[in-house]
Amino acid sequence: MTVDALPDWRAALPWPAPDAHKHARGRLGVVSGRATQTGAARLAARGGLRIGAGLVRILCPPDAAAVIAPTIEAIMLTPFGSIEALFEAAESLDAVVIGPAAGVNEPTQGNLRVLAETGAVLVVDADGLTAFEHRPAELFELLDRDDVLTPHTGEFERLFPGLLEAGREAAAREAAARAGAVVVLKGPETVIAAPDGRLAVNDNGTPWLATAGTGDVLAGMIGGLAAQRMDSFEAARAAVWMHAEAARAFGPGLIAEDLPGRLPAVLASLYAAHG
Amino acid sequence: MTVDALPDWRAALPWPAPDAHKHARGRLGVVSGRATQTGAARLAARGGLRIGAGLVRILCPPDAAAVIAPTIEAIMLTPFGSIEALFEAAESLDAVVIGPAAGVNEPTQGNLRVLAETGAVLVVDADGLTAFEHRPAELFELLDRDDVLTPHTGEFERLFPGLLEAGREAAAREAAARAGAVVVLKGPETVIAAPDGRLAVNDNGTPWLATAGTGDVLAGMIGGLAAQRMDSFEAARAAVWMHAEAARAFGPGLIAEDLPGRLPAVLASLYAAHG
Amino acid sequence: MTVDALPDWRAALPWPAPDAHKHARGRLGVVSGRATQTGAARLAARGGLRIGAGLVRILCPPDAAAVIAPTIEAIMLTPFGSIEALFEAAESLDAVVIGPAAGVNEPTQGNLRVLAETGAVLVVDADGLTAFEHRPAELFELLDRDDVLTPHTGEFERLFPGLLEAGREAAAREAAARAGAVVVLKGPETVIAAPDGRLAVNDNGTPWLATAGTGDVLAGMIGGLAAQRMDSFEAARAAVWMHAEAARAFGPGLIAEDLPGRLPAVLASLYAAHG
Amino acid sequence: MTVDALPDWRAALPWPAPDAHKHARGRLGVVSGRATQTGAARLAARGGLRIGAGLVRILCPPDAAAVIAPTIEAIMLTPFGSIEALFEAAESLDAVVIGPAAGVNEPTQGNLRVLAETGAVLVVDADGLTAFEHRPAELFELLDRDDVLTPHTGEFERLFPGLLEAGREAAAREAAARAGAVVVLKGPETVIAAPDGRLAVNDNGTPWLATAGTGDVLAGMIGGLAAQRMDSFEAARAAVWMHAEAARAFGPGLIAEDLPGRLPAVLASLYAAHG
Repeated sequence: MTVDALPDWRAALPWPAPDAHKHARGRLGVVSGRATQTGAARLAARGGLRIGAGLVRILCPPDAAAVIAPTIEAIMLTPFGSIEALFEAAESLDAVVIGPAAGVNEPTQGNLRVLAETGAVLVVDADGLTAFEHRPAELFELLDRDDVLTPHTGEFERLFPGLLEAGREAAAREAAARAGAVVVLKGPETVIAAPDGRLAVNDNGTPWLATAGTGDVLAGMIGGLAAQRMDSFEAARAAVWMHAEAARAFGPGLIAEDLPGRLPAVLASLYAAHG
Repeated sequence: MTVDALPDWRAALPWPAPDAHKHARGRLGVVSGRATQTGAARLAARGGLRIGAGLVRILCPPDAAAVIAPTIEAIMLTPFGSIEALFEAAESLDAVVIGPAAGVNEPTQGNLRVLAETGAVLVVDADGLTAFEHRPAELFELLDRDDVLTPHTGEFERLFPGLLEAGREAAAREAAARAGAVVVLKGPETVIAAPDGRLAVNDNGTPWLATAGTGDVLAGMIGGLAAQRMDSFEAARAAVWMHAEAARAFGPGLIAEDLPGRLPAVLASLYAAHG
Repeated sequence: MTVDALPDWRAALPWPAPDAHKHARGRLGVVSGRATQTGAARLAARGGLRIGAGLVRILCPPDAAAVIAPTIEAIMLTPFGSIEALFEAAESLDAVVIGPAAGVNEPTQGNLRVLAETGAVLVVDADGLTAFEHRPAELFELLDRDDVLTPHTGEFERLFPGLLEAGREAAAREAAARAGAVVVLKGPETVIAAPDGRLAVNDNGTPWLATAGTGDVLAGMIGGLAAQRMDSFEAARAAVWMHAEAARAFGPGLIAEDLPGRLPAVLASLYAAHG
Repeated sequence: MTVDALPDWRAALPWPAPDAHKHARGRLGVVSGRATQTGAARLAARGGLRIGAGLVRILCPPDAAAVIAPTIEAIMLTPFGSIEALFEAAESLDAVVIGPAAGVNEPTQGNLRVLAETGAVLVVDADGLTAFEHRPAELFELLDRDDVLTPHTGEFERLFPGLLEAGREAAAREAAARAGAVVVLKGPETVIAAPDGRLAVNDNGTPWLATAGTGDVLAGMIGGLAAQRMDSFEAARAAVWMHAEAARAFGPGLIAEDLPGRLPAVLASLYAAHG
């Protein structure tokens, strides 16, 4: 972390109170892609559940329900066949992840628009970003200041063409200002920027994360912390760090599916420090 | 535990005799919800199997069979398409869990009515309770003294409006008397009350249990002990304690799916003490 | 083991030679029940694969294929829609398990008849036994001396009414003679008898095995050893002992699904002793 | 390894650079068989993902999609209903495995032909080899010098009848020359030969690998290294050694499904040596 961004997020982690119950710990939704593309949403959902969201619900197109249903136990499932049904399913949620394997298409745009009306914190990743490649302003208009965009370099360039020429930190800061939302510019040194000017550079990155699906888990983790009402900028910083810490502890041979199961060890060490 | 409720349940735990066979160790049924809502029943079933029920059978609506079938091996499955078929499938069972993701609707009421005729110990949880929100007396009429209700605070309030004003212990005691069944009022300090006036307050609660699905596992555990013919009040006390003990041992990052796999360690320590 | 049955089976265990290949290590088939009843066959198949059969194939009714297919990787699958198709699928197999959740009905009888013509060692368990309750002689006529019956006490009584009055050892001995096959009479002290008069009583039984599905795993283990051309009586003795050893090492909270994964440790200790 | 083949492949292992991203780490495809035969492709895909391919995609016949979809998370899935669709799905891939449970038939031949046009490194295993039993020259014409054939002895004999009479090393060398591709002749001492005359004999073979599906994992591992642009001969040598090392560490009771999960430990020890 740079000096203007000390790891003060530790103090902000949402440990459950003695009288916690699952609803109080936050409700996270994850929008799934179609039947052959559900793995990304399942990775995100598991990331969000492991990091402490009390309830996690996958919202899926009807054809994906039969694929997802046998793969989940604690995670819940609601198929939606229309924008209206998505709104209804999402309106009690505290945060929603949209984008992982969602499809770069109009339905993803439409789903994002309706989710923006629910009041949930949005974590927009992957196809959720690229679906607005030719109309970034339209995306930014939908966002609130506690929403989070999680582009890797390619996705960032599509939404903010040319901005990276100023360097990654300046680019992320400007992007957050333009989008009016938290921006997580992923890379070896992930940059997290808030629309109020806060900026952090993650310092525990690891190349073992360069494997399919790790971004989906990260999006779920950010969503899971945001659902617990952690400030979105702090949630992003904390999730990025924990995600890398879990990967570093695993080392060579890591695949994305290992990450959720490694979070308890990372959480336990942070909790011990928390006292 | 309060002084009037020493952990004497340890002596009542149903360890298998040297000549035990699976039928003698008790038969547990768990009623599943519909196709997209089967995870809760699967969690309950695994809890019941791990805690020692010799046979565990999920009873499901026909559309849920294709979802559940690939997810089970030792657990058995019987789809039922009518009340009559449910009765037939359940009549050889020693205990049945109904409620987790069952649906708050008339079919759940009807299923509960027919299960009450089988002689099995009923563990009524979640939707099985809420389905009788507007007609609690009708539910109580169905119950025997060894049946168990497992409401969290919200569900308790729906069945026993106003009772909590007297405090949780008094409320649970009165509820057990009214219902004519064991009541497990879940919370940071779970209260267990029997219709004969016995009362216990669990003392090893942990906030890590505030995550979706843990209640389903608990219902299955109570059912699993009751199927082994442990006294229902003692079964509820023992299950509540073991459930929390498994969660405490896991710590931060716990999800409900971890719990059944953690029961063997808890059981082993109790068995060692048993000598 | 009784004195007339020293654990000489250790010397007969089929460790793979340095130039082993999967076909040389034996091919095991397991007949599955219908779509909602496939878990038992999957348990048996995993038991057989873990104990060293080089190839394991589940033979299933067509409606069960969609359930089984996503649950297997190394295990292979052949749906059969007729007796002829079953014969064709089975004729290259070295051993076949039939019975676990197969159904007590005519198709099971017919399947067993056709399998008896393939030359594979048959391991007949559960429904494969009970399907011949009213015509045991017909079953016995199908059997070769290296086939294996694995009844628990109830199933034994159905096939050999009254025989248990002579005591379990005498009963098993007489049953093996009548059936012309190896008989494994399961119980706290499982008795294994061969038609040539050999008899062994297993001495490491454990009540933790009194849970659904453990018998299915045992049948698969016997079949897996027989497929490797271990003498059927020795295979049965070895499998019964290893099955119990795996269960004892696990202790309280064991479920059948734990057993196959525990076999490597049991095999490793036997292999170390083998030198 | 023989003296003319020192384990110099260690220096060639493709460890990710600090700024690695998943696309830079290589894209692997695996062609699946039909709905009841998908396990082999799933094993290969997991082997390839674990060994470091950044993206792994299973390419499957349409009827297999519903089977595979629930079993994967990080691995991606593209059903193809025509040769053209296969080409389109494969053209961005760096390496493709074809053969495991693919079917010995014309579609496999046709799929191989179209994949040969994509520029991806081909790893041809199992049915992909046997499908050309009667027309080996046609197969060889499709291959580039960095493609890899992975026959066991029987498959080798079908493609190169009589060649084994010269001994395994000479046979593999001649086969590589004829095929114009790397040949991995599997056996207790696997021989790896390149068309430029390089030859290596693996020296850590183990009989525990004589179990169904281990060859599928190996094919995926070779493909996974090749996708990371490791020289195909070195990739084959490295994969064969790591595959055996994982199996040796596991010992008795190994099944193919254990192997991918054991790769991280093997990789970690190699990475530590790498410094």
